[in-house]
Parts: sequence; structure tokens; C-alpha cells
Amino acid sequence: MYTAPLLEMQFLINDVLLKDNVYAEILPTLLESANKLARDDLEPINQSGDEQGLSITRDGVVNTATGFKDAYEKYISGLWGSLQFSSDYGGQGLPFIYAISTQEMWNSANISWGLCPLLTQGAIEAISFGATKDLKRQYLPKLVSGEWTATMNLTESDAGSDLGALKTRARRDGKHYLIKGQKVFITWGEHDMTENIVHLVLARLDDAPAGVKGISLFLVPKIIPNDSGKLEQRNDCKAVSIERKIGIHACPTCVMSYGDDSGAIGYLVGEENKGLECMFAMMNNARLTVGLQGVSLSEMAYQQARTYCDSRVQGVAPGYSEPGPIIRHPDVERMVTLMSTLTDASRSLCYYACAELDQAKNADNSKDREDHERRVGLLTPLVKGWCTEVAQEVVSLGVQCHGGAGFIEETGIGQLFRDARILPIYEGTNGIQSMDLAFRKVLRDDGLALMGLVQEMRSIDKVELASILSDRQIKDFQDSIEDLTITTKTIIGKSNDKQVIASIAFDFLMMSSITTAAWRLIAGALCSQKGGLEEKYSKDFLKTRITNTKNFVDIVLPRYKMHCSIVRNQINK
Amino acid sequence: MYTAPLLEMQFLINDVLLKDNVYAEILPTLLESANKLARDDLEPINQSGDEQGLSITRDGVVNTATGFKDAYEKYISGLWGSLQFSSDYGGQGLPFIYAISTQEMWNSANISWGLCPLLTQGAIEAISFGATKDLKRQYLPKLVSGEWTATMNLTESDAGSDLGALKTRARRDGKHYLIKGQKVFITWGEHDMTENIVHLVLARLDDAPAGVKGISLFLVPKIIPNDSGKLEQRNDCKAVSIERKIGIHACPTCVMSYGDDSGAIGYLVGEENKGLECMFAMMNNARLTVGLQGVSLSEMAYQQARTYCDSRVQGVAPGYSEPGPIIRHPDVERMVTLMSTLTDASRSLCYYACAELDQAKNADNSKDREDHERRVGLLTPLVKGWCTEVAQEVVSLGVQCHGGAGFIEETGIGQLFRDARILPIYEGTNGIQSMDLAFRKVLRDDGLALMGLVQEMRSIDKVELASILSDRQIKDFQDSIEDLTITTKTIIGKSNDKQVIASIAFDFLMMSSITTAAWRLIAGALCSQKGGLEEKYSKDFLKTRITNTKNFVDIVLPRYKMHCSIVRNQINK
Repeated sequence: MYTAPLLEMQFLINDVLLKDNVYAEILPTLLESANKLARDDLEPINQSGDEQGLSITRDGVVNTATGFKDAYEKYISGLWGSLQFSSDYGGQGLPFIYAISTQEMWNSANISWGLCPLLTQGAIEAISFGATKDLKRQYLPKLVSGEWTATMNLTESDAGSDLGALKTRARRDGKHYLIKGQKVFITWGEHDMTENIVHLVLARLDDAPAGVKGISLFLVPKIIPNDSGKLEQRNDCKAVSIERKIGIHACPTCVMSYGDDSGAIGYLVGEENKGLECMFAMMNNARLTVGLQGVSLSEMAYQQARTYCDSRVQGVAPGYSEPGPIIRHPDVERMVTLMSTLTDASRSLCYYACAELDQAKNADNSKDREDHERRVGLLTPLVKGWCTEVAQEVVSLGVQCHGGAGFIEETGIGQLFRDARILPIYEGTNGIQSMDLAFRKVLRDDGLALMGLVQEMRSIDKVELASILSDRQIKDFQDSIEDLTITTKTIIGKSNDKQVIASIAFDFLMMSSITTAAWRLIAGALCSQKGGLEEKYSKDFLKTRITNTKNFVDIVLPRYKMHCSIVRNQINK
Repeated sequence: MYTAPLLEMQFLINDVLLKDNVYAEILPTLLESANKLARDDLEPINQSGDEQGLSITRDGVVNTATGFKDAYEKYISGLWGSLQFSSDYGGQGLPFIYAISTQEMWNSANISWGLCPLLTQGAIEAISFGATKDLKRQYLPKLVSGEWTATMNLTESDAGSDLGALKTRARRDGKHYLIKGQKVFITWGEHDMTENIVHLVLARLDDAPAGVKGISLFLVPKIIPNDSGKLEQRNDCKAVSIERKIGIHACPTCVMSYGDDSGAIGYLVGEENKGLECMFAMMNNARLTVGLQGVSLSEMAYQQARTYCDSRVQGVAPGYSEPGPIIRHPDVERMVTLMSTLTDASRSLCYYACAELDQAKNADNSKDREDHERRVGLLTPLVKGWCTEVAQEVVSLGVQCHGGAGFIEETGIGQLFRDARILPIYEGTNGIQSMDLAFRKVLRDDGLALMGLVQEMRSIDKVELASILSDRQIKDFQDSIEDLTITTKTIIGKSNDKQVIASIAFDFLMMSSITTAAWRLIAGALCSQKGGLEEKYSKDFLKTRITNTKNFVDIVLPRYKMHCSIVRNQINK
């Protein structure tokens, strides 16, 4: 049974991340209320949704699994979709990180369901970024409220990571455009939870330049509203099939067909041929939330494994004379401890990056804003890449903790294992994230953003560190920062050799993330020592911030050395 | 489409592992013929079997997936079940490693199917080890030929890793015993491929001592043959349900009920209360073959990913001007290279351990035999533990190489990902393997076996090493041996602190395996440089032995440092 880590969230947001946050007081109530939706409405339909799966009729109708529509209605009536958005279109203007913490809960409890609001949120970003006032007025209120959902149509069967290869066509037709083509892997492309679905579709005009510079973005509603907002005209688009997947069985992953008849009516978002710019406004956000999904599944697997290991009795552990719960066995404890510290670390990294978005929004001046934006840009591939890789490990450890029962679907841990496997793939594979880090985020600015981060990590006072870490642990952390610095410089020195850079980018992403995550845990542990927190948090809770940090340094941080050696061996080949 | 790595197998067996092997000449034909069965009969029913799955009737009848029975009949008529067994009971007396290489193929092509002969082979070992002459005469010929299959009944719902807790009862009843109880997770416990199934069942006599010292082993046939071998009397045992699992969907994993009516007739194997001894005769063998299944799935995932990456066109890679196959992208190449070297390394380690069994059997004197047996004992947890962990990584990389298509069941790579997840769990979880290594294989003999291995690794001539590795690579390899030595001594020094030893055992298993696997690749690479091999093997093939070895040292060996640091950090806590 899922319970959101309310104190962890509250501590990170209110005590570690946001300064002078005027909404601090409402956070605990908000989190508690979100926890209710996740625990009472979303989790109970997670396993049944996985078993039931989905089917599609010949007319392209997709009926979602039992309970999904009801849960979604509660989501709308709870105003959960509008937390972070501007009041111009009905949003509540709360920090992004508040929305993130609720989304962690949806995805822990039911990731198939959670993907639907995730995509809608991304579409709101893209429309807000690039659409005309009229389009915004017509579509944003319904999307912000959640009454309509949205999708992101990039991929075609021959255009995945390489968007430049896409073939869907768009033709000018008066005020709108007519779209023709087929898109694949469209998450929540069709369903019965809302009366309308808004598709954001990448397509190419007939006179567009080749490659990524000739891609435009269109808003293609499933049903076209008239000027007064009434849904009138069924558009020429439909789902033609849904994929049979390893996991997220209750999430309809659709093949979408646009313009089988006269062409699907679409409205331009942003400028012609500059669609990728808008799409990236959506995608960057989505990448952070996919990283967050990693945190969600890690948390869920940790909770489930912890409960199982605390209750399953098997064997006499060393130091005991009677059979007892398997958590007593040191190797089981090792696995649970690793799950715990990895989950905490990935949340600390992910929330930090998301809060930087809030800091950018609230910055007093443009330099501050740019600094925070640069930091988010740097951290986005780390969050997406590392938190989703960590999730693979944590869910697999969760299976392992269950022994034979872990392989049986009944337990539910197997579903987490299957569901999690999509995370390193979608919204840009982790290979793509590595390229983003190495080429766009490090080489393009000559290491400015990363060196800024390194400088900040380096500046923690040694006396402060000594209050939570041993000398050896301090040295290990500092060594990791120095090795990251040296490796970054080496990479910058090799910037002309794109092949070598690309071949070490993944290991570089991993080593950067591990040290940064250690730093975020340390920041949290240091915060936990400030006075005056015992009232809000238990002593145990505060102590765990330090224990998890020490554990991370002892059993996870050594991985950076391995990645660092691999990078060096490849560069010096 | 699967093709067995025939040259790799032949090279390892004939040129690296077996000396003075009188059967060397027949190996290529044998392998080619096994490849035909795997490729033409087993692989074509792998994906369909996964989709079709299994069901059970109320009477406990299990119908296997389409084609499984036919393939099994070909297996019997090809005499594949009898390769390594003594001619006393119809075996062909070939080396065990010959059987292993064919089994690698069955499990690559169809692991659900491959599990059936795997269990039968283990039962033959146990019966050969402990049963009376009469039982052997009655059962072994049918099991060796494969006309009957066998199962291994250890686990109960409250007795998994802790066998001492088992509750199935046995009561003396004249010449035989009557068995009553329920067993779970019984692989191939019921099916329609053969006319009879022989269950080996662990149970407890009423007057037995508590715990593991009161467990006896019984042979419980599904149908009891009369003295002339005719199948006459249905025994009081049946499958009551089959599990819904993450993977191996076509393998019936049964809950078995014994003695619902008068008691299932069972025959004692070995002595009363000494059942575990016989069971371990079976289990050690089975642990090696589960490690082999790791090799099988790694190989299959590698082949499939390689084929996909060579043909899927996407994007322009650095150094190219046109879109081309994704293998050109350095990060994709990194993944495929990693898969290749890990697969090669795990095969080299696994085959080495299996060949040591053959060396023990063929030893001239008891000292030699004991040396080889000690080596096998040491290597068994490495093979089971490491090769199955490696398989998790390789199949997951295989999914990743496919991008979005990897998550779609149609591709088939997802099945490998799901199937592989059982490997670190069954036949003793990898946690149990770690305990076996640390406590039984290292501490019990004060490091004798491991120091013997280290000595042998250390003794490779530096000039020889320099013919395949760079100075830096040689140093890395030698450092890893020294670190293994130091860590082993540290562990022996801490032998009184069982909790600490148990907490670092998994990382110790990993670091021991990585260095040992590096050594086995080096041994192979050195062999590939002997003259006179160009006729049997292509130049490319021989060169790949060296490339894979160098790659392993560059991109996998650095992991040992991480494990070593974790061990030290835990010990010095």
C-alpha cells in the first residue's frame, strides 16, 4: 500500500530548496490531499489496469481500464492539473515543484495513468510558448483544468531519435493547415476519459527545407470546437492500433493516423519551420518529469520491498537465534539500503533541478534568471538520464528482495520492473541525453555551466562537511569533484573528436550525476542539522537524511571512479 | 534469427580448455547438428510460446504451447539428452562441456523449453549419486534418453532459501514411503511432452531431527512403473495451479500437491535425513547450468541487437555525411561492444568451470581430482552469480539498442528481458551464491581455493601479456589481482564478524568474478595467437578474441575497483 513520502517532499521543498516561498504554509495540506488521491484512487486500479490492459475497436475507440475515468474525474475536480500554471488561463500560480511533488505521487501509484496528465502538462508549455492568443484562449483553459488532455506527436516509424527524417505533411488551407501522415508511439493518443484530445503534431510543409530546419508544429484537436467553444466537428484523425508493450499496459500507446480523408485540420503553433523550438519547450519539461517518473517507481519499489522484507520470515540471520524477517539478513539489508539511498538521491537531484525552474521564474534580474536557466539546462539530461537508470536498478533490486515471489505477477513488483523499462527510452533515449550533456550543455559553453556547478560543490565548508561525514568520506566526495573537473577539461580538450566524445558521453553523464546527487544529499543532510526542525520532522527522519548521505558516499559514490576510468581508457585509446 | 556461436564454442572447448580430448574431432559436427535443432525447431516456437502461455485444467492437466512436444520428440530422437552420461544407463560418455554447449543453444533459442531438459539432467545427477541400483536401473535409462522428464521439489510457500523450514511429510510404508505436502515453484512440474514425470521431492520423516539435518529425498514418479517397466499406477500427486510470471511464460511453473488421498508413493534416494547431500549433487550442476542460461540469453540479446543496429537506419553519425545504420553512432556502438565483451567473458568463465568438471573426472590421481573439484566449487557461485547478473545488463542493453521498438513485445527483445529476470533468483538467489562464496568457498578453507586461483592468474608471463595488452591494460589487470588478494585477506581477517562478511559478500562475488573473467578472456586471447589456427578459424575470429579482451579490460574491469571500494568502506565502517 503506497503512502507518499510527505515529509521528504516537504523537507526538500520548504527547507532545502525554496527560499522566501510565500506558499510554504499550504504545502503540507496540499501534499496530504494529493496523497489521498494517489493512495485511494490511483493505486487501487494500478495492478488491475495492468492485467486488464487495453483494446481498440475498428473505429479507433479505446476504452480505458476500469476505474481510470473515475479517477481522472477526481483529478479534474481536485484542480490537480492547474497547480503551477498562470492564472491567465485558470491556473493556480503555485511553484512548479509543488506540481512535481504531486506528480511523483501519481506516477508512484499508477504510472500508466500518470502519463496522461504528464503529456497534457508538456503540451500546455508548448502552447503557452508558441501559440497565438486566440489558440491559447481557446485551448489552454480546457487543458489547464484537465477537461481536455493532450498528446505529443513526434515519432514516425522511420523517424525516432532523428526527427529530421519525419514525413508527415502539412498544407496551407486558408487560416489553418491540412495534415496527412502517420505517427507512432503516441502516449494516450486515444481514450475515453475526456470529451476531447488535443494533439500536437510535428509535420513538414511542402516547401520546407530538408531536415530539422523544416519542421513545423501544429495543434490538431480530435474534435474541433466552434468559436463559442462547443465541440462540433470530428477532425480527420484517429488511432489505428495500440501497441502491446513490456509494461505500462493500461496506457494506450497509439499509432495515430492523420488525414486519411481530406486532411486533419491543424493550427500552426509558433512559426513555420520552427516547430522544434516549441516542441523543445515541451520536451525539456517532459524530460524532467520522466526523470521524476524514475523517482516515483524507485520510491514505490522501495516501499514495497521494505514492507515485504520486514514481514517475510525466512531463515536465521547471523547474530540471531530464531528465524525472523529477512531484513535481518545483511545481504537483504544491503539491497534495501541501496534502494533507499538511491531513491533519496534521485529525488534530491530531480527536485533540485525542478526548483531551479522556479528560481529562474522568480529571479529579480536577468543574470540570476540566466544562471538558473543554465543550471536547469545542464541538469535536465542528468535528471532524465540518471534517475531513470537508477530506477532500473531499484525496481530490479525490488524484485530480487522478493526472491521467487518477485517473479510472480501477483506480487506487483514485477509490474514496476516492466513499467520502468520504458523510462530510459522515451523523451529522448539516455544515449540522446548523454549527447545533450556532452555536446550542447558542456562543449557549447566551454564548460561554463558545469564549472559553475563544480565551483558550488567545491565551496561547501570542510567544517560543515565534517559534521556529517567522516574524513575518508569527505575525501571521497572531494576527489569525485576533482575527477569530474579533470574529466570535463579533458573532454573540452578533445572537443574536435566528436566520435570519442560521443563514445564516452554516457559514462560522463553517469559520473556527473553521481557526484551531483551526492552533493544534493549532502545539502539536505546539512539542512537537517539546522535547529528548529524537530517540531516539523521527527528525529528519526532528520537522522535518516544523514544516514542516507553517508550510505550514498560509501556504496554508490565509488561508481564514479569506474565511469571515470572508462572515460579515460576510451580517450587514451 | 539465432545462429549458435559455433566457432566460439569449438575454440573454447578444443583449443582453450580440453587437453588430449579424444572426442575433439566430432565436436564441430555435433555443434552444427545441435544448432539445427535450436535454430529450426526451438527458436521458431519461442515467441509464440510466450504469447500463447499455458493453462491448467481442473484435473491438473497442462497442455504445452504449440510445437513444444514435437520439438521435444526431436530432442529425444537426436539423442541430445544422453551426451554426457555414463554408458551404464544409455549415455554416450562425452565430456560434460559438450552437453553444456548444446544446452547453451537450447536456452538461447527457447529458455522456457530449455528448462525441461535442464531439470532432468540435474535429477539424473542426484539419482546417480544417491539412489539404489534398483532405482537407477528402473529410472535412469528413461531419464537419460529423455523419454521421461524430471523435476526438483524443494520450495514450499514458507520454505524458500531456508530449506530447513520445509513441512512436507514422509511416512515409512513397507518398501516405500508415503509423501504428503505441497510444493511451489516446481519448474515443468506437469506437462504433456512425455508419458511420465519423475519428481524428486524433499520431505521430512515424522521422527526426523529439526532443520536441515532432518530432510530426506524421495523419488516420486507421476506414474509408477511395474517391475517390467510398464507404466501402470497413477501416483497420488498432481499440479494444482501454474504461476503467472514476468517471463518464461511457456514453462509451466507449478504448485504441486502430494498425497491428497492416501499419500504419494515415494522411494528414498540416499539415506534418511541426508537428502540435502543428494540434492546438492543436483543443485551444483544446476547452478552451473543456470549461469549458462545467463550466457544463452546474453548471446541471444547480443545477436538480436547487433542485427537490429546493423540494419536500422536513423540519423547521421559523426564522421558521416548521410544517414546510416545506427551502429555507426558511437553510443550505440558502445552498447553493442559492451554486450559483446560481456557475453564472451561470461561464456569464457562458465565454460571454464564446466570443463574443470571434466578435468576432475579424467584426473590421473586423487590430488589432481581434488584440485579440479575445489576449483569447480569455488567457481560455481561466480558462474551462477555473475553470469546471471551480466545477463540482466546485456538483455537490458539489448532493449535499449532497439529504442522505442525495444519496449514493444513484437520485437522479441522484450521477451528476453522478461525471461532473464528469473536467473538471479532461482537455484539459490545471487545473495545465497554470495554467502556460498564467502563462507563455504573462501572462509571454510582459509582462502586456499581462491589463493590457488589468484596464483594461477598471477603466473601469466608479462611478455605474453604484452603480446595482447598495452602496458596500462596489463597494469590494470595485475592491480585487480592484487586488490583481490588483499581483499580476500581482509575478509579472512574479519571471519569472526559474520554480519560484516555477509554484508560485503555480494560485492566480493562481483569483484572476484570480474577479475576471473578477465583472466579467462586473456587465456583465450593468448591461445588465439598460437600458430596453426587460421585454417580452423578465420583471421577475424581470432582477432576478435583479442579485441574483446582489450575491450573488457577497458570498459568492464574498472568495475572491480568500485566493488573493492564498497567492500573496504563497509569493512572499515
